[in-house]
Amino acid sequence: MFKEFSISTENRYQLVDITKRVEEMVKESGVEEGLILVFTPHSTAGILLTENEEGLKNDWLEIFKKLTSEIDFQHNRIDDNADSHILSGLMGQGRVLPIKDSKIVRGTWQQIFFAEFDGPRTRRIIVEIT
Amino acid sequence: MFKEFSISTENRYQLVDITKRVEEMVKESGVEEGLILVFTPHSTAGILLTENEEGLKNDWLEIFKKLTSEIDFQHNRIDDNADSHILSGLMGQGRVLPIKDSKIVRGTWQQIFFAEFDGPRTRRIIVEIT
Amino acid sequence: MFKEFSISTENRYQLVDITKRVEEMVKESGVEEGLILVFTPHSTAGILLTENEEGLKNDWLEIFKKLTSEIDFQHNRIDDNADSHILSGLMGQGRVLPIKDSKIVRGTWQQIFFAEFDGPRTRRIIVEIT
Repeated sequence: MFKEFSISTENRYQLVDITKRVEEMVKESGVEEGLILVFTPHSTAGILLTENEEGLKNDWLEIFKKLTSEIDFQHNRIDDNADSHILSGLMGQGRVLPIKDSKIVRGTWQQIFFAEFDGPRTRRIIVEIT
Repeated sequence: MFKEFSISTENRYQLVDITKRVEEMVKESGVEEGLILVFTPHSTAGILLTENEEGLKNDWLEIFKKLTSEIDFQHNRIDDNADSHILSGLMGQGRVLPIKDSKIVRGTWQQIFFAEFDGPRTRRIIVEIT
Repeated sequence: MFKEFSISTENRYQLVDITKRVEEMVKESGVEEGLILVFTPHSTAGILLTENEEGLKNDWLEIFKKLTSEIDFQHNRIDDNADSHILSGLMGQGRVLPIKDSKIVRGTWQQIFFAEFDGPRTRRIIVEIT
């Protein structure tokens, strides 16, 4: 089952918890066991599993800076978002999780996040359940 | 086919080779061609494909330190494991590999590892074969 | 459907755009909706989704250096490619994308790349479509 939804981000870098929305789609799909791909068709955003805790969300922003600092990016001469592409590619734009008993199998502190690296923008999120 | 097993880790950071156990599950599954997801439902651990060589395993520990050093993490005020969450999220908690002729297709030096970032703990590993 | 092809790289680090070849395989497969795994069975290479822009491709090379610099790798005493293994494991050796209407769903600037971290070599790329 292929599903799609959109979200709007407000900041250049932002983590948006999409767990609830994705879990509703699994329920709707009727799939009892299998795989779910959560994917974003963008090259300056990512999908991430992490804990939804305010301090940690700020820590992620520091890591994004640390990973891409101190480089004179060539891509910035045509578009000022080389760091966004790098973070997107490194983190990856999708995550695959198992489904069992009609539910995503995940840890208590393992929420599903959309990671914005070049906002604010409207972004597509795709869910494929097999 | 959904399968699950547990492992116990001894150190805060540790790489545990789980290739053999995962390959036995593929054999048991009877699946001739398809996909396997190796996934850990935790937000302070990861799944990684790398070579099982003692020096390299130590090098990974140095990289874990390098990636998360020199940041005053906010999450550490409530739980002293921000670095564990960051490494888990960055590396990812799952890997998907192809199956052909009833075997995982992988390189000679491409072993499947569980990566502990906040041990020692008992950890769940999930295998979904489709 | 399981498919495989090879590419040859010319440099130690190199990004090779394989989008066209992979998309032809999706067409041939006849699969209308599902998943595609693009995977490389090597522990010193990766698969990456990023924009095919010359400046950005050079920026990636700078990031590869930044991520692995200033460490005296133990693995280099037996084989001078610890950094290649680290980059491969961190980035991951595969990417999973959704298929809809017989096409890979991806962003305009989200090309599929093979990432060489220890070239020049001949490398295998595996495509599993389900």
